[in-house]
Amino acid sequence: MFPETATKFLNPSGVPLWRKEFQQKEDSSTSDVFRSPPSSIKVAARDSQAPGCLKPCMISLGAGTPSSAYFPFEEIKVKVSNPPRFAGEVPESTLHLAKYDFEPRVSDYSLDVALNYGQGTGSAQMLRFVTEHTELVHSPPYGDWECCLTVGSTSAWDSTLRIFCEKGDYIIAEEYAFSSALEAALPMGIKVLSVKMDEQGLVPESLDDLLSSWDEGERGARKPFLLYMVPTGQNPTGATQLLERRKAIYAVAQKHDLYIVEDEPYYYLQLPPYTPGESSSHEGNKPCALIPSYLSLDVDGRVLRLDSLSKVLAPGSRTGWVTASQQVVEKFVRMNEVSSQHPSGFSQAILFKLLNHHWGHGGFFQWLEKIQTEYTWRRDTFLDACNKFLPKDIASWNPSRAGMFQWIEIDWRSHPLYKTGANHRTIQQVIFECAMQQKVFLTQGSFFWSDSSTTESRMFFRATYATASQDDLTEAARRFGEALKDQFK
Amino acid sequence: MFPETATKFLNPSGVPLWRKEFQQKEDSSTSDVFRSPPSSIKVAARDSQAPGCLKPCMISLGAGTPSSAYFPFEEIKVKVSNPPRFAGEVPESTLHLAKYDFEPRVSDYSLDVALNYGQGTGSAQMLRFVTEHTELVHSPPYGDWECCLTVGSTSAWDSTLRIFCEKGDYIIAEEYAFSSALEAALPMGIKVLSVKMDEQGLVPESLDDLLSSWDEGERGARKPFLLYMVPTGQNPTGATQLLERRKAIYAVAQKHDLYIVEDEPYYYLQLPPYTPGESSSHEGNKPCALIPSYLSLDVDGRVLRLDSLSKVLAPGSRTGWVTASQQVVEKFVRMNEVSSQHPSGFSQAILFKLLNHHWGHGGFFQWLEKIQTEYTWRRDTFLDACNKFLPKDIASWNPSRAGMFQWIEIDWRSHPLYKTGANHRTIQQVIFECAMQQKVFLTQGSFFWSDSSTTESRMFFRATYATASQDDLTEAARRFGEALKDQFK
Repeated sequence: MFPETATKFLNPSGVPLWRKEFQQKEDSSTSDVFRSPPSSIKVAARDSQAPGCLKPCMISLGAGTPSSAYFPFEEIKVKVSNPPRFAGEVPESTLHLAKYDFEPRVSDYSLDVALNYGQGTGSAQMLRFVTEHTELVHSPPYGDWECCLTVGSTSAWDSTLRIFCEKGDYIIAEEYAFSSALEAALPMGIKVLSVKMDEQGLVPESLDDLLSSWDEGERGARKPFLLYMVPTGQNPTGATQLLERRKAIYAVAQKHDLYIVEDEPYYYLQLPPYTPGESSSHEGNKPCALIPSYLSLDVDGRVLRLDSLSKVLAPGSRTGWVTASQQVVEKFVRMNEVSSQHPSGFSQAILFKLLNHHWGHGGFFQWLEKIQTEYTWRRDTFLDACNKFLPKDIASWNPSRAGMFQWIEIDWRSHPLYKTGANHRTIQQVIFECAMQQKVFLTQGSFFWSDSSTTESRMFFRATYATASQDDLTEAARRFGEALKDQFK
Repeated sequence: MFPETATKFLNPSGVPLWRKEFQQKEDSSTSDVFRSPPSSIKVAARDSQAPGCLKPCMISLGAGTPSSAYFPFEEIKVKVSNPPRFAGEVPESTLHLAKYDFEPRVSDYSLDVALNYGQGTGSAQMLRFVTEHTELVHSPPYGDWECCLTVGSTSAWDSTLRIFCEKGDYIIAEEYAFSSALEAALPMGIKVLSVKMDEQGLVPESLDDLLSSWDEGERGARKPFLLYMVPTGQNPTGATQLLERRKAIYAVAQKHDLYIVEDEPYYYLQLPPYTPGESSSHEGNKPCALIPSYLSLDVDGRVLRLDSLSKVLAPGSRTGWVTASQQVVEKFVRMNEVSSQHPSGFSQAILFKLLNHHWGHGGFFQWLEKIQTEYTWRRDTFLDACNKFLPKDIASWNPSRAGMFQWIEIDWRSHPLYKTGANHRTIQQVIFECAMQQKVFLTQGSFFWSDSSTTESRMFFRATYATASQDDLTEAARRFGEALKDQFK
């Protein structure tokens, strides 16, 4: 699953061979990680409290941080799943995060520290882990890239819009896009330029055409400069850009000097090509190689990558990170300081203990491979059932290559109501309600139009295979098939 | 400490006597808590997943939420402090949050739920607890008030600015104010109208004068309408508004139709009046009665209250809440949905288990009273030492009545450099550096000027007694005294 660079630098216990160098940096120089000019109160806090910044015996009456003696949490224990199979056949391990002895010499990250105020980057310990992970998986090809923790990619995208855009600007998005991402932009007075997609997602020629013909006067806005994409397992279409497509889009971005935001919650849910009838043999699934990210192609420093733990560990962790050039990451740190501050200390302590101390990078890779194989059988189960139960003259689909979603096209013009003059929205609603009567819920494709003036030429429904049980995935396809047959008979 | 209304409605196990009614509301009607028009994806998630919203046997392929089978967290145990003394003389309790058996019948809040995506209000369970707490402590005197969880008051204040203000607006703040609060406003192009303070904080006559004489043409901005205050234990001055002061300011707000933001992280750190020489007897301290909040005086629905758990439980929880009228809270929910989403699920599960199941409201009140008495001896210890060691012809102070800070005025015009023409900033820096040489750190008062064009007539240093040990608090005052005597001799 992982590129060679992601594994060849690990020692047997899952620590990068170059860890010592990074650790020295972390220990010796706060200023490498937290750069000026930060908020004045954070500077004061750092001056008064950061280890090594104060002279010996200094007493600080500076920063207004509570004494950890008054935190009523003495100890946290977390029972977690274990590599290599994470299946419970070995006794599950317990992570133990005590108030005063959370391996202070190794990590200097006691529960006292985790539960107090921290820096806008997130804790130095979690920041180190995600930076190492990013280096191992993506090896960004320029020098001054950095990471910063976020309270999740929803918030990171909101911050991105605030950092880059002014009221009246256009951002560029795929023809179908995650509705919440667009709903973050609209209240800021930011408009969306919608670009055509095919089965691999955004079409670079279409992007080039739109930008080459941009007329500021006619549009009443400066030429768009921010391109938002979900390149892997796109929500809602499931489209996944292969390497050549990514290179072509990157070249268009260079031509028009676009800044690329790659929002990649599904990056580790890349699935092997679908082969009908293999869903029952999911134990034998092998993880597939990861398509290189935009970050790994980014020779110019024009990519902001949003990473999330929501789809691979748990959404409730509300912990993710961004990776970009130093000057962009700096903006995120400054914005965090006056908004979310940093992820929950409970989250950070639990995640750090799990990822760094217990699993290590190697164990985390194994976990991601396990998740990949789990989603493979889920997709295969659902598609096997679609093949069996959906009427192929009405419904069609490209098997998803990543993520949680299968996008299903409906030939709505063959619906009986079409001849009576019913429009797209009416027929979509009728099909939706008929499916609900059959007790199956799919999401209407029109929810995801990035341009509400879209010509309503095609109709889709989005199905997720992320949650339902194996039996229910099959039964859901059967019911949806019944609903379609009922409607189109 | 608490008003009679806060305790008379509790049964012996710390549950409000009217809990059943609220619980019924929570169970029976999602729409009372989550109102339209929310983000479309949240509506879809609710339609497809909320208990009771789907017909029996419905299979959802709708919301893209991961299966909790893939969360590698099986169980969390938290060891906590116990009422009534929280002192460890009884065996400390362990909160046990298992994946599938987190008392589902009572709370319907398993770890599976807590670690998945939630609603923009925060979890229904934590929302219920903070709403009950708010009812018990503040009894807001109008009907349609509500609460919404936040990822802390820093973020809630940022959201407030985004909800209420446009670029070019003025907000109203106290003459000295928390620097991060102002630094959130400035990048949005929001300016600050600074109002005079006395030992009780903002002076209502000064506020009235400024607004009565507001000239839109001259100022180039509409009349200010948002008043930001920390009424209790203000940061940095420690000033605390007594009840009559609050009523007078509320009347000015009514006269000029101001909306009041009361940011109250130190509300529960209200301290009895300082009596010299009593710091050694801190075991006998009794909690003092709470000054009524603006929320409790708010007959018009013109108050937004920001509550924080940072100073009373742990900053790293990154969990707080806002209370306001329904129409304002609605805006927060909508903003959360496209930014922070909700507090960490780890945080919410741990806090809910502690506050609701383990302590109950009564136990939480006891904890708050314990924290209050702890801060009382901390302040008393520091002030006893200030009385002993600071030169009273140079340094003066009003004993803090709440919070974490003691504000100390320096008679800078009697500094030897003043005669040589040195300005305020230079002399402040010289004193700061001399204190650093004495190995004591206090924060310069000029950090907190809300209007940078302030006439530099007075000089202050801010000392916090929140963190240093008892011995260090005394030693710090001695060192600062030495630094002052050195400088002013």
